[in-house]
Formats: sequence, structure tokens, C-alpha cells
Amino acid sequence: MHIEQLIKNIGPLDGEAMQKAVARLNNLTKPIGSLGVLEDLAIQLAGITGEVMPKVANKMVIVMAGDHGVVEEGVSSAPQSVTPQMVYNFLNGGAGINVLSRCAGAQVKVVDVGVADPTLKNINLISRKVRLGTANMAKGPAMSREEALQAIQVGVEVAEGEIDQGINLLATGEMGIGNTTPSSAILKVYSAATLSTIVGRGVGLNDEGLLNKIKVIETAIMVNKPDPADPIDVLSKVGGLEIAGMTGLFLGAAARKVPIVIDGFISGAAALIAYKLAPQVKDYMIASHLSEEPGHKLVLEAIGLEPMLRMRLRLGEGTGAALAFNIIEAATRIMSEMATFEEAGVIMN
Amino acid sequence: MHIEQLIKNIGPLDGEAMQKAVARLNNLTKPIGSLGVLEDLAIQLAGITGEVMPKVANKMVIVMAGDHGVVEEGVSSAPQSVTPQMVYNFLNGGAGINVLSRCAGAQVKVVDVGVADPTLKNINLISRKVRLGTANMAKGPAMSREEALQAIQVGVEVAEGEIDQGINLLATGEMGIGNTTPSSAILKVYSAATLSTIVGRGVGLNDEGLLNKIKVIETAIMVNKPDPADPIDVLSKVGGLEIAGMTGLFLGAAARKVPIVIDGFISGAAALIAYKLAPQVKDYMIASHLSEEPGHKLVLEAIGLEPMLRMRLRLGEGTGAALAFNIIEAATRIMSEMATFEEAGVIMN
Repeated sequence: MHIEQLIKNIGPLDGEAMQKAVARLNNLTKPIGSLGVLEDLAIQLAGITGEVMPKVANKMVIVMAGDHGVVEEGVSSAPQSVTPQMVYNFLNGGAGINVLSRCAGAQVKVVDVGVADPTLKNINLISRKVRLGTANMAKGPAMSREEALQAIQVGVEVAEGEIDQGINLLATGEMGIGNTTPSSAILKVYSAATLSTIVGRGVGLNDEGLLNKIKVIETAIMVNKPDPADPIDVLSKVGGLEIAGMTGLFLGAAARKVPIVIDGFISGAAALIAYKLAPQVKDYMIASHLSEEPGHKLVLEAIGLEPMLRMRLRLGEGTGAALAFNIIEAATRIMSEMATFEEAGVIMN
Repeated sequence: MHIEQLIKNIGPLDGEAMQKAVARLNNLTKPIGSLGVLEDLAIQLAGITGEVMPKVANKMVIVMAGDHGVVEEGVSSAPQSVTPQMVYNFLNGGAGINVLSRCAGAQVKVVDVGVADPTLKNINLISRKVRLGTANMAKGPAMSREEALQAIQVGVEVAEGEIDQGINLLATGEMGIGNTTPSSAILKVYSAATLSTIVGRGVGLNDEGLLNKIKVIETAIMVNKPDPADPIDVLSKVGGLEIAGMTGLFLGAAARKVPIVIDGFISGAAALIAYKLAPQVKDYMIASHLSEEPGHKLVLEAIGLEPMLRMRLRLGEGTGAALAFNIIEAATRIMSEMATFEEAGVIMN
């Protein structure tokens, strides 16, 4: 399906279900509104699913993996070889995202959208490599427009496939050494903030490395002149394959009326591109945590979302999103399991 | 046991276990420190329990219930009869705290430390009533010093009893119409902030009610002259029975080296009294969420703790603490389930 058609399929939330959700919440044994964000989530989930008591127990984190040619500019303190090494770690269940997903009763799926290692292969890996990593965006476009659209399509199809199998709550995760650099570039295209405000240390750059990273991003924007009015242009010139894949996850989930959780800065950059392509996709997004990466706050503000968790995370992989899964599920259980005033014989005034 | 002896039993954290925890965390497949608060929790839990991979799966919220004579001054928009009604709701499993505890795989126990209803009785209720609600603190002390010590003792004994039965992670909850008023008074005794900064609307006071509540608290402090150097004096004059009960929970858990989670403003006020009695108890406390009640931020700052969750909750009962249970358990599973660099063959630099 063409992306234009997909975007047309992303409809508004179900207002009637949301009204019914508000009515039920106001009848439960608590002061009105006192469960705060849990109530907001319950209303949003009713709007997304059309059900006052929806089920979101079939949870999955989809980890998009891709590499970045820009690492040859020295923007990351970790070598590119870590990307495939961590992909194997995900597939073996030993990474942070695996542990936090198990804690949430969630599955993890890993997608190779563009890891630079041509030998990467595993029976449990979804191999949808668009190319062997992006090109160095400091010297030209990270990828072609066609490749960016292909990587989005990978995300859309993976989301659709999992939703067809019964998944009803999705989260976005990623792995790709160097990927805070394209994320910062995307944010800069859409933000008046200076790069020194936006750019962080990633895995662990020192002061010199941080200054170099800022210069590389400035160069990439100058060389490529990404057009903010054309989000696919931005994504292809200064983005990344796993970022495009996550953009596709957001669009695919929203088109199928499934809630989808934003993780950290890179996931947030992908969400921003999806939001610029189709503003109504915001209604299907849930912000989880506020990352230590300074750009994350700005990216969530640009979409207009407020995170629930302050954990000082900066790991990515989907870890913050997985931590939010239990809270999101709790919001649905408030709706289905709390007693009403009448049922409990509680008379508030 | 006398409270002085109990406080002497609250020792420092196990520094050797904490060092081992740091060493393990730095060897797991993630950038150093990138799991933020999860790593802080893992280190704290190692220090509390003396084990690098502790178990905190036996979780319980203890809800302390008590009434407040000061409600006759019109400080709450809900009638006092709601306290016993909600206690029955807790015992029947229909309240917010029941749902969120089930989501966390945690038990709920309810303790009557001082509900004003003399008929309150249930096989599952722990009946340890010290008196039928406090006296009106706007006219004199809320209770005697002896009663405050008795209510603390109830908390200590309930914590010890549950820990003896295998509970290894506790949270504090409460129910008591009017209890943001004594909590605000306690905070005011220990804070330079003005009452207009400290005092919130509780269940739902209007502007006029809020001004009255501030005046009542001013009066209570003027009439009673609580001595900040003597936390039991503060607790007895302008506190509450369920607040004292929770203070006992904090002290009892710390003495037995069991982590204990702070919920909202009232739980925070009880934690502040415990901290003033025994500063080392702070090391055993975990802050969960930042409440909508404005005093909550100040109370956590006074202890020196940072909350993880921003959910705009203002329900109490232990709801925010229960939401944090899964996150705390996740921190222990990071320690026991994540692969090391060597195990996973990941080479970061």
C-alpha cells in the first residue's frame, strides 16, 4: 500500500467510546480525575480501540536495527560492530530490552532494516535489510528517497503482521551505533533550539567528541538542505534506516487502531517524522519516559506529548517503553476491575 | 520494643554488597550507567538486603486507616463516613489500590489504627484502633504523645509480622478523610515554604475551602506549638493516627532491612517524621511518584528523594507506590537476567 493511502486510513479516535470511558471513570470509587495519567490513558485507549474496557495484554516491543555511515566522522564512542553483536544479544534474550519485556509479559521481535554486517542472520531475526547501513550524511544524503520509503514500508508491514497475529499494544525500540546523530539532525530541522541544546553524548562522548558531533550535524544539514515541509526528504537525507522503520511502525499501528509506545530520543525522532507526515498519528502514540538525552524532551514537546517516567535512562532498545507497558495495562484494569460508588456503597457527598 | 531501641537497630547499608552491585552493573551489556534509576535501585536494594541479586517478589501494600477530628472545621469536601466505606471497599477488592496491587502481583493489608466508626469490623481487617479518630487539632493536640507512640508501634508490629511471613518489599498506603490537613501541618513545621505553597485541594476543595483549610492549619500550629526538634511532639499535636502508623511501617521495615516505598503526600509526611526520628531510615525508602498535591514535592525534597513516576495522581491509598512495584522488581531482574559483555560477546571499545 502506498504511504499516502495508509495515512488516509488513520482516522480520528472514537469520541463516543471516549465519552463512555469518562462517564465510567467518574463513577468509580475515587475522587474525579484523581488517577491522573491513568485516567487519560484509559480514555485514549477507549478512543483508539472503540472499547470502554479494551484489552492490551498482548504486548510486543519491535526493535529496528540499522547502521549509520556517519560513524566514520567519529560521532560515537562505540564501534559499529556493536550493532550486530547487540542484535545477537537481543535474539539470545540477554539484553536490557529482553529483561524489561519479560517483566512486562511482552514479546520482543528484532528487525534488520539496515545493519552494515552482510553476514547477520538468525532464524528469529526478521531480515528486511534495505541496504548495508546508511551513507555518511556529512558528505551527502544518508539514503535515497526510495530507500527511506522502503524502510518505512518494512515498519508498516511488520506492525501489520504482528497485529494480525493478535498483538494489541506495540512499543518501538532500536539499535544502531551512531543513531543519536541522525536523530539530533531530524530534531534540528524541526526545532528552533540550538544544536548545543539538542545534542547529547550518546553512549559516552567526551567534551571534544561532543563538539565534533555538533559540527558533523551542522555539516550534514548544510550539505543536504533537508526540506522540513517534506518529512521523507528529511528522513532520507539526515535520518536512518531503523528510524524510518520505526516511523513505519507508528503509521502501521495507527492505521490498524493499535496503541504504540514511544521509547527514547531515537524512537522520538521517528515519531516526529510520523507526526509530520500525519498529525493524527499522535492520538495513537503514548510517551513513556523522559530520557537523559537532551533532545528527547524537545522531540516530545514538538509532538505535544508528556512522558510518565523519569528514570534517567539512555539505553534505547525500547527499554523505557517496556517499563511503561505495565502502567498502560493498569489503566485498562482500572476500567474493568474498580468498583463503582453504587457497587461499593461509597457516598462521597 | 521501645522506639529508641528500634531506631538503634536501623543500621547503614551494606557497602560491600553495593560495590559488588556496581561492578556487576558495569559489566552488563549496556553503556555504563545507561539504565539510570534502575541501576540506582539495584545498588540500593543490594545495600539494603546484602545481596547482589536480591528477591523482592513478595510485595505488599499496607493501608493504614484513621480519621481526623479536624474535619469539623470543614477542611475536606468529602464526609468522614467515606473512611469506613472505603475500608470495606479495600477489603472487597474494589478500590484503586486493589487493582494496582493485583497488576503488580502484590497483596493488600488494611489496618484500622483509628477510624472514627466504632462498628468497623471485618475478618480481613487488622483492627488495631488506638482511638476513634484524632481530636480537632485546631482546638488542641490531635492526640496524646502516648497515643502517637502506640500508633507508631502498630505500624512497627504490622511490618515485622508481614516480614516474618516472607514479605520482602513493602509499600505504605492510607485512607482517612481530611488527612492532607495534618500532612500539610507536619510539612509546615519542617519547611520554610508558605502554607499557600504547601496546601492543596485534597479530594476537591473550592477556592473558599482552600483558604479556610490554610487558616485552620495556621490555627492548629499556633494553638499547639509543635516542636520541630521532637518529631513525636509534631506527630501527636498536628499529625494523625494513620500517619503515625505509616511512620511505624518505615521504621519497622528499615530495622528489618526491607525496602519500603513512599506513596503520595500523606505517606510522604509519615516518611518525613520517620526521617526526622532516624535519618538513616532514608536509605531504606524508595520514592515512587510525584503527586498533584503541591506539598508532596516539598516533602520528598526535605527527605532528599527523587520520584520516578509523573502520573498526576492524587488518590493516595498507596496507588502510586503500587505502580512503582514492577519497576523496582525490574531493577532486580536486570541484575540477575542481563548478559555480561563476555557472555554476549559484545565489545564496546
